[in-house]
Parts: sequence; C-alpha cells; structure tokens
Amino acid sequence: MEITSVNNDLVKQTVKLQQKKYRTEKFLLEGFKVIDEAYKSGIEIDYVFCKNPEQYGFLKEKLILTNDAVLKKISTTDTAPDAVAVARKRIYDKSVLKDAKTVVLLENIKDLGNLGTILRTCCAFNVDAVVLFGESADLYNPKCVRSSVGNLWKIPVVEIKDFDELSETFKSFSRIATLPRANNLLNNFIPKRPCLVMFGSEADGLSQDLINFATDSVKIEMSDSVESLNLSISCAVILYKVYKCNEM
Amino acid sequence: MEITSVNNDLVKQTVKLQQKKYRTEKFLLEGFKVIDEAYKSGIEIDYVFCKNPEQYGFLKEKLILTNDAVLKKISTTDTAPDAVAVARKRIYDKSVLKDAKTVVLLENIKDLGNLGTILRTCCAFNVDAVVLFGESADLYNPKCVRSSVGNLWKIPVVEIKDFDELSETFKSFSRIATLPRANNLLNNFIPKRPCLVMFGSEADGLSQDLINFATDSVKIEMSDSVESLNLSISCAVILYKVYKCNEM
Repeated sequence: MEITSVNNDLVKQTVKLQQKKYRTEKFLLEGFKVIDEAYKSGIEIDYVFCKNPEQYGFLKEKLILTNDAVLKKISTTDTAPDAVAVARKRIYDKSVLKDAKTVVLLENIKDLGNLGTILRTCCAFNVDAVVLFGESADLYNPKCVRSSVGNLWKIPVVEIKDFDELSETFKSFSRIATLPRANNLLNNFIPKRPCLVMFGSEADGLSQDLINFATDSVKIEMSDSVESLNLSISCAVILYKVYKCNEM
Repeated sequence: MEITSVNNDLVKQTVKLQQKKYRTEKFLLEGFKVIDEAYKSGIEIDYVFCKNPEQYGFLKEKLILTNDAVLKKISTTDTAPDAVAVARKRIYDKSVLKDAKTVVLLENIKDLGNLGTILRTCCAFNVDAVVLFGESADLYNPKCVRSSVGNLWKIPVVEIKDFDELSETFKSFSRIATLPRANNLLNNFIPKRPCLVMFGSEADGLSQDLINFATDSVKIEMSDSVESLNLSISCAVILYKVYKCNEM
C-alpha cells in the first residue's frame, strides 16, 4: 500500500494518536529503533508508515509506503523519523502485583522524560512492577516511549487511583517512603521484601497519605548545598541499593 | 526603564544569546527561580526584562519593564517566562583542578538535559570539579541552565580539548573508566583519591584514548535484559558510591 497525501483518512486518524484522549488502545512508535524494540518485545503493531521499506522487512504485510510530508504530519518530533508505527497498548491486570517482590510507586509524576527514564532504571534493577498513583503523565506519550529506550514493554505498569485500593493491595508489603528528611540513611538501609518503594513528584514530594501509609522511610545522603536531586536520579540511587540487597 | 517594542536594539541583542556563538561572555537566565538562584550564587546580572518588577526588588536598578511580546521573543521556552535576565558567565581557570580530590570527566556529552542533571548530581555528591572533554554541549544553553536547577554556579566546570593536556593534568590521579563491560563491579569498588571518574556519551561510550588512559574501570551491576542506563543515571549511581567511600 502507498499513501502520500496528508489528507488521507488513515493519516488523519493516526495524527489523533498524538493526543492522550485518543490513546485508549493504540499509540505511536516513532523511528526504527523504537519500532524494532517494540516488535522484538512482542508489541502488536497495526501498521507502519515508512519511506524505507527494505529496513522494515520484518513487518512487511503492515507497511504503508509514504513520504516526508506524511511522516512529518504524524510524528511528534521536530525532524520527521523514517517511519511511524501504530501499535496496541499492553494493559496489565493488577493481579501482576500479587507475586511481586519489589514494586515502585510513583505519585503524580508529570515529567515524561523522567517517567521513561525511571522505567528503564526499574528494568535494569529488577523491579517487578511499577504503580502509577494519582494523576500521572501518560506512559504512552511518545516522549515517554522514547526516553524509556525500549524498556516500556519489559515491565508491568498499573494505574491505581484510589488510596483504599492501594492500601489493600500492599497491606502485607514493607512500604518505604523516600523523603529528603527521613531518619534512615540509605547507606544503612536494608529493605525487607516484598517491598513497595514510594516516590513523590519533584515539585510536591510524597503526599501525607502515602507518608502515613509507609512502614519505613529513607533518605539519600548528600551535600547540604543542594536542595534535592532530580527524581529519576533519586530513584536510581535507591533502586540500585535495593537491587544489591536483594541479591544477598 | 521600559522597553515594549520587539524591534528595540537591546531586545535584538538579547535574542542573539539564544545562539551558542554569541554566548562568549553572557548568557540568558529565564524565569524567577533560575534568576533568583543565580543571583544568590553571586552570578553577575547585567539587566532583567520583566513584567512583575515587584518580584525582582533585589535587582531593582537592573530592571527593564516589558511585556509578553518581548519576553516571548527573547526567551527559548514555549511559554514565555515572567522575566529573562542577561548574566555573565563564570569562567574557571584550570588551576581549580590542582587541589581537587574528586573530578568528573564527561566526554562528548551532547544531551543538554543530561548535562544539567549531572552537574546537579555532582554538587549533591561533593564532586570538586567537572571536566568537559572533546565536543561538548554548551553549558550555558538555557536548557542546561534549567536542568541544573541552580547548581550550574556551584561547581567549577572547565573545558579541556587536548588529550595531552588532560593526560598531564591528571597524571597523578587514579583514573576510572566507567564501562558497561568492565571487570570490577561497583559494589566491590573502592576509589583511591584524588580520582578522575570518566563517563562517555550514551551513544558512543568512552573513546579508546580514555580507556587506555584509565588506571581502573568499573561497571554497574544490572539485569541482562537492559542494554544500558541513561548517562545521568549511571553517573549518579557511581558518584553516590564514590561519595560514600570518601566519607569513610
């Protein structure tokens, strides 16, 4: 198939996926690396607009030959990628949390780059699942997809909006609040499993509800001259420690 | 003073600072938080275009009253901030490296968000100085200024372009290459001081010259399912360890 007009109906439909409200089932994959990684991880791909079909042989019956004008229109980046695919979201059931040993909770995370980077870090340090709590940025926003560098598909992510549900789900977990003013220093911290490691947004920190819900708290030792760390940095430093403790 | 025309000469001059080639001595500070932090750190501010002068009392003789059109024109963000200041770069002499105990080297770093985040992390973990080696992104790019969250001014950063100069400067240092395939695991790693901790770009890693120059190498333990970590994440996990070892 070939589509070269930016006014084509399928092009218009695809452009809609740039907006969160249309990404209920499908989302965009932009560029070879992202498409290739999603494919290898078994993400279901509906169709691919591309200009170099030879590079996408593995998706051959799904290819739509196109041009730069269409690619520019459907992509969200400043410079149009060589291909844009439409794929199906992978939606996880909350039951994945039942057997998890290490779960990361992110409260009200709005920064898309941070969110993708945190998912990548969670995969690296063997976190079993991620819970998005409160009002979170959209995981399937193209910027988050990019900054996860192919790791978005490797870890179950579930949304929990309701505190009672959260509380019920993790009642038997050790629940760790990461706070700039906690009593426990990370260096002395040994997490008990299963554990839920909770991070608030950079702007607001953890809510009082989650601080009260915690069974333990921890802070990263650092110079007094710095107010705080970037959120994805705090996550990484703490999750590396949890990972090393779990190995022992 | 009041300037409300986007065609004013000072406005045109200020707009030029959006481009690296004009930032030899001066650079832009955008928005209250960034301006306030730079001021508190003793950064010299030439003038401030602003629309809420009452908020900027501390800079009163330097204020230029203006409007949204001018602010939009001189700022680099999608939504215009309430103020944009022009400030003087803080340029460090290489002699700051002489008494340093922990120095971070970044080779060919192009990602501005990563660069700012790494400076913030270096401040938090008491790194004494940062060396930009090779072709680096511009520290005074507004995006880097923002992502450093006021920490750009707290740590000496020097550029070294020449390998011989680098080699001479750090000949008596312990020189650590951070590599995905090093033999030493971070967990067992105890740095000797003074030390130079070297990081390559995410795309290319460290150059062979720097790998050969290293006296030691280290890798972060992680799951095989993940190819690599984000560069600012790798820096943080390693620098936290160096910081804790230096405390002992």
